[in-house]
Amino acid sequence: MTATAPVAVVIGAGDATGGAIARRFAREGFTLCVTRRNADSLSELVNQIEADGGKAHAFGCDARSEEEMVGLFEHIEREIGPVEVAIFNIGANVRFGITETTARVYRKVWEMAGFAGFLTGREAARVMLPRGKGTIIFTGATASLRGGSGFSAFAGAKFALRALAQSMARELGPQGIHVAHPIIDGAIDTAFIRDNFPERYALKDQAGILNPEHIADQYWAIHAQPRDSWTHELDLRPWMETF
Amino acid sequence: MTATAPVAVVIGAGDATGGAIARRFAREGFTLCVTRRNADSLSELVNQIEADGGKAHAFGCDARSEEEMVGLFEHIEREIGPVEVAIFNIGANVRFGITETTARVYRKVWEMAGFAGFLTGREAARVMLPRGKGTIIFTGATASLRGGSGFSAFAGAKFALRALAQSMARELGPQGIHVAHPIIDGAIDTAFIRDNFPERYALKDQAGILNPEHIADQYWAIHAQPRDSWTHELDLRPWMETF
Amino acid sequence: MTATAPVAVVIGAGDATGGAIARRFAREGFTLCVTRRNADSLSELVNQIEADGGKAHAFGCDARSEEEMVGLFEHIEREIGPVEVAIFNIGANVRFGITETTARVYRKVWEMAGFAGFLTGREAARVMLPRGKGTIIFTGATASLRGGSGFSAFAGAKFALRALAQSMARELGPQGIHVAHPIIDGAIDTAFIRDNFPERYALKDQAGILNPEHIADQYWAIHAQPRDSWTHELDLRPWMETF
Amino acid sequence: MTATAPVAVVIGAGDATGGAIARRFAREGFTLCVTRRNADSLSELVNQIEADGGKAHAFGCDARSEEEMVGLFEHIEREIGPVEVAIFNIGANVRFGITETTARVYRKVWEMAGFAGFLTGREAARVMLPRGKGTIIFTGATASLRGGSGFSAFAGAKFALRALAQSMARELGPQGIHVAHPIIDGAIDTAFIRDNFPERYALKDQAGILNPEHIADQYWAIHAQPRDSWTHELDLRPWMETF
Repeated sequence: MTATAPVAVVIGAGDATGGAIARRFAREGFTLCVTRRNADSLSELVNQIEADGGKAHAFGCDARSEEEMVGLFEHIEREIGPVEVAIFNIGANVRFGITETTARVYRKVWEMAGFAGFLTGREAARVMLPRGKGTIIFTGATASLRGGSGFSAFAGAKFALRALAQSMARELGPQGIHVAHPIIDGAIDTAFIRDNFPERYALKDQAGILNPEHIADQYWAIHAQPRDSWTHELDLRPWMETF
Repeated sequence: MTATAPVAVVIGAGDATGGAIARRFAREGFTLCVTRRNADSLSELVNQIEADGGKAHAFGCDARSEEEMVGLFEHIEREIGPVEVAIFNIGANVRFGITETTARVYRKVWEMAGFAGFLTGREAARVMLPRGKGTIIFTGATASLRGGSGFSAFAGAKFALRALAQSMARELGPQGIHVAHPIIDGAIDTAFIRDNFPERYALKDQAGILNPEHIADQYWAIHAQPRDSWTHELDLRPWMETF
Repeated sequence: MTATAPVAVVIGAGDATGGAIARRFAREGFTLCVTRRNADSLSELVNQIEADGGKAHAFGCDARSEEEMVGLFEHIEREIGPVEVAIFNIGANVRFGITETTARVYRKVWEMAGFAGFLTGREAARVMLPRGKGTIIFTGATASLRGGSGFSAFAGAKFALRALAQSMARELGPQGIHVAHPIIDGAIDTAFIRDNFPERYALKDQAGILNPEHIADQYWAIHAQPRDSWTHELDLRPWMETF
Repeated sequence: MTATAPVAVVIGAGDATGGAIARRFAREGFTLCVTRRNADSLSELVNQIEADGGKAHAFGCDARSEEEMVGLFEHIEREIGPVEVAIFNIGANVRFGITETTARVYRKVWEMAGFAGFLTGREAARVMLPRGKGTIIFTGATASLRGGSGFSAFAGAKFALRALAQSMARELGPQGIHVAHPIIDGAIDTAFIRDNFPERYALKDQAGILNPEHIADQYWAIHAQPRDSWTHELDLRPWMETF
């Protein structure tokens, strides 16, 4: 690795999707900086990337902490290389009826899926703007577009993240920074779905749940778009998914 | 006033719109409970309502405090009467480029315009559900529908409030509670617009800015809708406003 | 009737909703001009309006014919009075899978629910523009917002009508003409629902289907809005309707 | 060419975008069937494709004629090969104030950009359904999402096309057919823009207008998506385009 290799930061690389995205960008020659709350749990991902001949750094980082996020981007820029891609991939899917939604849950979901996205986007913009280029991707969900019974907290955070993505795209696009908001509408092939929704998971045989590697391909394709043809928002769902 | 007169609560009754809404519901026979941070600043509004023959109670209340909001609704239900209408009317319009948006501002705007709306909606739902009726109205804005350059914080909060309104409407409608989200798209006839945007304010002569009394009429009309014909979302804008 | 009484035109007054709207505006002092394909079928409506002390004229008119629609508005303006309100209320709800949708059906649904709306809107605009005032209302439906399996023809026409309403509102609002697009999202209390969807109709006892009189009240309320506070789009649905 | 090579049909291949899409799919091994009103004007495109080693057939075809479109798909399936991809790319951008919009223009724009899309989609579905696979792409525009002053005809047709795309996607997705609706939001590098909007065209040096080859890449990418991760709608716009 040289200090000038471009860096891709994946905030929330703990799940299958974040990991697949990190591996994908690593294969394209990016140095990966991956975060989650506990850095230890990222060692397998870092090992995979290095085994494939890539470069990766793991950071334990609370993405809701302004101090930690400011420090993270400063450290990466100073020690590792220029951040060319930043991907925010923290979800916080909970479901409670309105009167069962505690203030603590409502706030925490927003801090994880909304506020942390703001910190990620702002710090990425800060380092990218002087260079006039970069790609920032915020992962959206069905709840980004539509509130539903029991989803006041989750949809609240995802709507806020979409507002951020739109606002940043309109401000930063004309300054050379590509801001995108892919919307994942369907179950993803993860341990969580396998263990908790076995009937849903059984659809895997028919390609009825999203393959994280294919999501990662789309994220790469967004970054690779030439600047005369940028996508801000797209949906991704299995062929058999109702919408 | 008897303890059984229906109560309308207006959270954020400090501005022209909140005041007009309070006066409107008071004229229809509701006992008004109006709040803002500092109760003293509500005395003129209370005096107006009482001079018109109505009933009103002012509460100094930080709508971002779960403890205060829980206490407020409990106090009203116990001491004043059953809450039949709850209106959330706190705005927090700020505009900063993304790198100039401090974490403090981003969080505060959400707390005022998003989180406080959640607390209002949840506490209103809590007291209305056992009675199977009531109306909850959240005031929306242009930024509820569209993020824009400089609006990551404000649009983030307003998007979150819209997600709340949709989620609550889908959960509570079939339980008899009417949740609505009117979107005010234009300048309102307020001291703030008069002092800060004199050119805009000059359109008042041509009905080019919204009259708070007319907004209040719409809020009343929403509450008065029979339950076979409820509106969840509508826009309100001056005839000459571009959209 | 004097030639100077304001006129409200209801294109497609044959169903329960169109009839209720006509009666509502007649009660407010408008002279009603009601149309459907066969004028004979409007005689009961005209009789009702006249029995209530109102004025009404029935016209047999194919709303898909430019010649007939141009002639209709010319005749009304010349012989009856100035058109202040025009309401387009023709639906054409059909449901066919895509390969079962004949070109004839696809075209006819568009002609009835889309093209006829264009002719109505254009002719209304033509007579209203010189006076700088008027209200034009296009009736929308769930399919105005969302295509669904089997709805390529119906949603195609309703989407087109919404595009018309938006385009006209943006062009004509600043010229004093109020263009609105209420969206009826639910079953209406009609003979058609009673005879074809008895289970649905049974919800009437619980106010689970829309009362045409209440829809009519909303149309009147839209027209009555002062021009500093116009609504372009609102939804109307029964409290228990899923959305 | 063997009769079993997969076929891509491009309806409306006369402009820069349709031509680039055709060349792109030809490079991927598809036999191209390209249409426009006058087949002669397609000879250059066919020559380009053949010079690149591809296969192409030009058809003069009025896409608004059910008879011609049914015949076209039958002929292709019988004589050339199975249609695996169908792309509808006819636009009809006109702008007239509402009272200047003739019924002839309104109808013609719909026939070209709406009704012809229906015929294309239906005939494509008819041949694809028995095979349980295929991709159908309808080209959208800014006016697919938003009506504007002067755009009642164009937005009406584009809204209708979007309703078709949504309805078909919801019906056909679970039957293995991928229906997509990319939205081109910006000027494209065409002779039309060069000759009529020279200031706009001058942005080409800064990648301020869309390169048809890049649009074509996106269309190919949509077709290439694995069926666990399909996109129904995405936007494409130059980095500096306001939205």
